[in-house]
Amino acid sequence: MEFTIDQIAELLGGEIQGDRNGKINMLAKIQDAKSGQISFLSNPKYENFIYSTKASAVIVKNDFKPKKKLSTTLILVDDPYLSFTVLLEEYHKYISFQKSGIEEPTFIGENSKTGDNIYRGAFSYIGNNCKIGNNVKIYPHAFIGDGVTIGDNSIIHSSVKIYADSKIGNNCELHSGVVIGSDGFGFAPQDDGSYKTIPQLGNVTIEDNVTIGANTVVDCATMFGDSTIIRKGVKLDNLIQIAHNVEVGKNTVIAAQTGISGSTKVGEHCMIGGQVGIAGHLVIANNTSIGAQSGLGKSVVEEGQRLFGYPVFDVKKYFRSYAVFKKLPDVNDRLNELEKKLGLRSNSWSEKQ
Amino acid sequence: MEFTIDQIAELLGGEIQGDRNGKINMLAKIQDAKSGQISFLSNPKYENFIYSTKASAVIVKNDFKPKKKLSTTLILVDDPYLSFTVLLEEYHKYISFQKSGIEEPTFIGENSKTGDNIYRGAFSYIGNNCKIGNNVKIYPHAFIGDGVTIGDNSIIHSSVKIYADSKIGNNCELHSGVVIGSDGFGFAPQDDGSYKTIPQLGNVTIEDNVTIGANTVVDCATMFGDSTIIRKGVKLDNLIQIAHNVEVGKNTVIAAQTGISGSTKVGEHCMIGGQVGIAGHLVIANNTSIGAQSGLGKSVVEEGQRLFGYPVFDVKKYFRSYAVFKKLPDVNDRLNELEKKLGLRSNSWSEKQ
Amino acid sequence: MEFTIDQIAELLGGEIQGDRNGKINMLAKIQDAKSGQISFLSNPKYENFIYSTKASAVIVKNDFKPKKKLSTTLILVDDPYLSFTVLLEEYHKYISFQKSGIEEPTFIGENSKTGDNIYRGAFSYIGNNCKIGNNVKIYPHAFIGDGVTIGDNSIIHSSVKIYADSKIGNNCELHSGVVIGSDGFGFAPQDDGSYKTIPQLGNVTIEDNVTIGANTVVDCATMFGDSTIIRKGVKLDNLIQIAHNVEVGKNTVIAAQTGISGSTKVGEHCMIGGQVGIAGHLVIANNTSIGAQSGLGKSVVEEGQRLFGYPVFDVKKYFRSYAVFKKLPDVNDRLNELEKKLGLRSNSWSEKQ
Repeated sequence: MEFTIDQIAELLGGEIQGDRNGKINMLAKIQDAKSGQISFLSNPKYENFIYSTKASAVIVKNDFKPKKKLSTTLILVDDPYLSFTVLLEEYHKYISFQKSGIEEPTFIGENSKTGDNIYRGAFSYIGNNCKIGNNVKIYPHAFIGDGVTIGDNSIIHSSVKIYADSKIGNNCELHSGVVIGSDGFGFAPQDDGSYKTIPQLGNVTIEDNVTIGANTVVDCATMFGDSTIIRKGVKLDNLIQIAHNVEVGKNTVIAAQTGISGSTKVGEHCMIGGQVGIAGHLVIANNTSIGAQSGLGKSVVEEGQRLFGYPVFDVKKYFRSYAVFKKLPDVNDRLNELEKKLGLRSNSWSEKQ
Repeated sequence: MEFTIDQIAELLGGEIQGDRNGKINMLAKIQDAKSGQISFLSNPKYENFIYSTKASAVIVKNDFKPKKKLSTTLILVDDPYLSFTVLLEEYHKYISFQKSGIEEPTFIGENSKTGDNIYRGAFSYIGNNCKIGNNVKIYPHAFIGDGVTIGDNSIIHSSVKIYADSKIGNNCELHSGVVIGSDGFGFAPQDDGSYKTIPQLGNVTIEDNVTIGANTVVDCATMFGDSTIIRKGVKLDNLIQIAHNVEVGKNTVIAAQTGISGSTKVGEHCMIGGQVGIAGHLVIANNTSIGAQSGLGKSVVEEGQRLFGYPVFDVKKYFRSYAVFKKLPDVNDRLNELEKKLGLRSNSWSEKQ
Repeated sequence: MEFTIDQIAELLGGEIQGDRNGKINMLAKIQDAKSGQISFLSNPKYENFIYSTKASAVIVKNDFKPKKKLSTTLILVDDPYLSFTVLLEEYHKYISFQKSGIEEPTFIGENSKTGDNIYRGAFSYIGNNCKIGNNVKIYPHAFIGDGVTIGDNSIIHSSVKIYADSKIGNNCELHSGVVIGSDGFGFAPQDDGSYKTIPQLGNVTIEDNVTIGANTVVDCATMFGDSTIIRKGVKLDNLIQIAHNVEVGKNTVIAAQTGISGSTKVGEHCMIGGQVGIAGHLVIANNTSIGAQSGLGKSVVEEGQRLFGYPVFDVKKYFRSYAVFKKLPDVNDRLNELEKKLGLRSNSWSEKQ
């Protein structure tokens, strides 16, 4: 990537003070920036750095008046931080989508179609009867089973594994090691104490704008025609377990290492912390917030609650109870004292332990 | 897959009412089924669907008497649900084992032998001196290290990684991202505060009929001649950690994200919930049940207990204690009141917090 | 590997009693050893085995006086166990580094350089502009993104995925399924309730002598120029989550399935148990010990504490509180009794539940 300061100012709708022909190839923080890089100044407490920065350009607020001589070029905008994030995104898009073409060797099965401007990394595998949209990036070692569909602009990182018949929407990003559509955990106990595998014949449907973190697993639904569903805009962190027939509602965000058991339906706009465990066959209302490491064993009916604990209840109440928990030996001593005072017990309970 | 209704009725030992030459290529729920699909009616409350279903055939109980005209063919059997699961299994077997032959490119080392009717997906890797049984399916990107043996009818999904010298039994299924035989976590502290790696030289032995879920890890044993052992019929869910020298007993079932530390021996027929943590060097009796997210720090001697908590004790007792835990601020207030009443404390404890 | 007993004695600086020309090709425990194998006797309670062992050689202490006739050769040393671990290490090194050369097919991009004595397994992928040191072993299906550097003697196991611009030091070992440099979990809420992805543009830096267990994930830092840092000598177990901008201090050891949230700085020489959850933006003092499954929501200022609980406090205090927790129904009953005695409540609290 290399742009002139002129091009960047035009993209941001900003005004230039200084050399408009300087070349920019990278973004950096003002204190770390080198020649050829662009930075921004938003918080006044960093102003000193602008007089010594090596950045070739700095994005500043319209009303910025330098107090000393500058050796960098300024781009004046309404909101420097916002403008910088626009550049970050452009850069990220550039990086993410710069790969294109087909590296050899790759494998593609029969009757599979791929869109325009696709990247198929070396050793990537596409099975039979797949439909892959435009601008899709399939990194090396990705596995795409038979009958999978992937929408436009989705990024499938290295070593993502998508089982047969899964559906992935537009603008999704699946990070390395993600597994989509593996068998749900279903076993029928037999008379001899062994378990028979219940065939898992449904699929996984991932809607648009979903991001799934590294090594997260989404199991397929049990029955034909059923799907484990990740709705539009959901963001899943790393190492999460989503069991068979789960539905995760629109724009819900789930932190790392959380597990959701089979057939649970999580509402929209929920925020679920890391390492949370959620039992099967529950329904969780919209806008529910669940604190890290909590355990959920019952459905959540009322919307907008903030829950915590093992099992969960209201987070504030949990911490009030926990404050007393930390003093429980004291509580016990006080009880003993009261009992002695009233002559209720000669040997206190704690001494019998 | 395509069968006539006649063929299916023969497989199920059922009697046909209607067109015996209809073609079936898929299974579906009665309310979702389309032409060419077969469904079943077991629960009477779904009876209405049979009069409108588009399924080409429906499996019903022997004594079923339609109340309206039917446009579908009936197959009459003793137990419709059981018959349907028989079909599900047949279908699953068909799907699982339909892949065969060798896709190119693949890699196979020296002195390795593979059985009949094998599938070796593109980019799969088999090292030196391996023995792979009959009907084994090795999906793309699977890695099978030197000296590994795999029994008959086992399915090794995409990107499973099996380190050298591991042994996998018959009828096993290892889902994508499973790692078998990685180094146990063994480090010897040195005088300078650093840690020296203790070489891990044992292996992993997985017996027959074991299923291992996606991204689960089973570490190798430490010493030569020792094995981390997963016994016959064990079912492991996704993202589980099995440390070095662990033994998991016959027909034990473990839910997702549970971790078992080094050298612990889990009994037979245990049921272990999700996100459970089990310390090292323990022995857990047969038929032990451990609730989700529990922590186990001591051996379980008595068989058949149901445990819960952090650390665990009897599940019913845990929930009785937890009911009081939720009211601990109340408990504290009541203590304060009693103490004031008896003149034991002028400033209550809670006010000193 | 095959050595004479003579060669081994020389390596250990030991004295031989018996046949110095015997051939050794394996190490084993004294009770399991076969001909061609070497074992050791350290604990006197195993002395009986030395008279029946089939090992071709046994390492014993200098002052060992056999009480019966021996059929094995002795190597006399100062510390038999230490000598055996030296052999274990030599063997492990031999096994780990025996692979070399380039298996076909592999992929290597433009301007990438690899050192001497490298192993590049089949289907391994190296992007553009990478620098790979001497003696590095890159197993099959490993993915090394553009601009990655790897120091000397590091082992990259099968299906490790290293995103672009990550830096890996010398003598590191990354086990199968490890993901380095995946996007941190950063999303900005939008007015319509959806989330916009915040581009993650930093990298991961892993210093020397770091071991990372199977399927562990280390996310990249958010900003250009920033790194998620794993310091020298850190040992990470399997299935761990290290979020963006985390720093793990020198020689810290972390057990399986633990998660550390964004921007937290873990001190040096810490010991963190399995399934621990650590919130973001914390600072944890050196030499902190955190028990398994604990939850940490606040920074740890004082060095050398041993913490436990959800959330954590002092481990001894936790277990004293937990002892009373187990008796909470009792505590409640005793309170009721006291209240009745003093006429404070006619209906006890517990009866109102």
